[in-house]
Amino acid sequence: MTNSHPAFGRDVRIEYSARHVHLSQEHQDILFGPGYEMKKLKELSQTGQYAYEEKVMVKGAKGQAEARVLGPCRKQTQVELAFSDGFKLGVATPVRVSGDLAGSGACELIGPKGAVELSEGVINDQRHLHISDKEAEAFGLKSGDVISVRLPSETPITVHDVAVRVHPSFRMNIHLDTDEANAASLREQGATGTIAEIWQKSA
Amino acid sequence: MTNSHPAFGRDVRIEYSARHVHLSQEHQDILFGPGYEMKKLKELSQTGQYAYEEKVMVKGAKGQAEARVLGPCRKQTQVELAFSDGFKLGVATPVRVSGDLAGSGACELIGPKGAVELSEGVINDQRHLHISDKEAEAFGLKSGDVISVRLPSETPITVHDVAVRVHPSFRMNIHLDTDEANAASLREQGATGTIAEIWQKSA
Repeated sequence: MTNSHPAFGRDVRIEYSARHVHLSQEHQDILFGPGYEMKKLKELSQTGQYAYEEKVMVKGAKGQAEARVLGPCRKQTQVELAFSDGFKLGVATPVRVSGDLAGSGACELIGPKGAVELSEGVINDQRHLHISDKEAEAFGLKSGDVISVRLPSETPITVHDVAVRVHPSFRMNIHLDTDEANAASLREQGATGTIAEIWQKSA
Repeated sequence: MTNSHPAFGRDVRIEYSARHVHLSQEHQDILFGPGYEMKKLKELSQTGQYAYEEKVMVKGAKGQAEARVLGPCRKQTQVELAFSDGFKLGVATPVRVSGDLAGSGACELIGPKGAVELSEGVINDQRHLHISDKEAEAFGLKSGDVISVRLPSETPITVHDVAVRVHPSFRMNIHLDTDEANAASLREQGATGTIAEIWQKSA
């Protein structure tokens, strides 16, 4: 970590997500019925991703709450909850990078046509920076680096342990959840954060 | 700000509060009836402060939610909400030091015996450090200083703009709200934070 790193002090756009679910095709068929066509509500900032109009109920030991379904389908169903969601619902939410689901939290998903008992798949999605390979080069960052980002606001915080994820198709954005957005009093998408720390593995 | 400051790197105990209300005697009489005796639930960490069993409803433009009443009565009613509470209820929550209520947020309070329309009194209590005069001297801090505190956890954050408040009766504690506790995945009172920045007004 050094203040002379090319990423230090750079501005990054902040997005945050409420709890949501990525379904496998098999689980979508059970929850909504085979052949059901999900209705696209809007495109998301990462290309090829979209939010559906449909929601499912996420049920844990202490309660249940609706969560929006995102598309397209994935190989394995993944439920992304904020810490406060997991706390209220009684569902474990280990902090994981998207897709790293072995031994993650369990819950029940309930849709209009059926229900699914998930033995794993619930995570608190690790804070991350989406960045394209070209931008990453300019920033001196690579996948696996970890950064801290300061969010200026009436209640400023710095979020640490933000994983850098590089892909040619990525648009540069920090992805947080609603707990962090609330702590920083964010009222809408698109606030600007500043990279305050950069942690890189020594070669 | 300097890393050689005596407060730098010091550990401090973290407490956080859910939304709550301090009532004036006049408003307590309206909400619970004149002469009503509030029931003490527990002592709080600051001497002479306690939580009551009683709750009131806090109502805003978009919704309502219960909030615990704290004692003893104060000169002016003060409602302390987290940012997410204000957002959900449709109530403005300017960030203020306790007691600085001029032009703060408005809401309705509803109790078992009556209701009160508050034209001001709702705040997002500024993050603060309670510290005794003796400890403050050892830490090189005075009232009006501002510190940043790093909260280590599975989702670490640093909270900035933490106001230092010195009083002989204070027990050393950082006071946060539930939004910050959720962002830092705090499961219980008494986590340990570390002072990471100290901002002092030049003489």
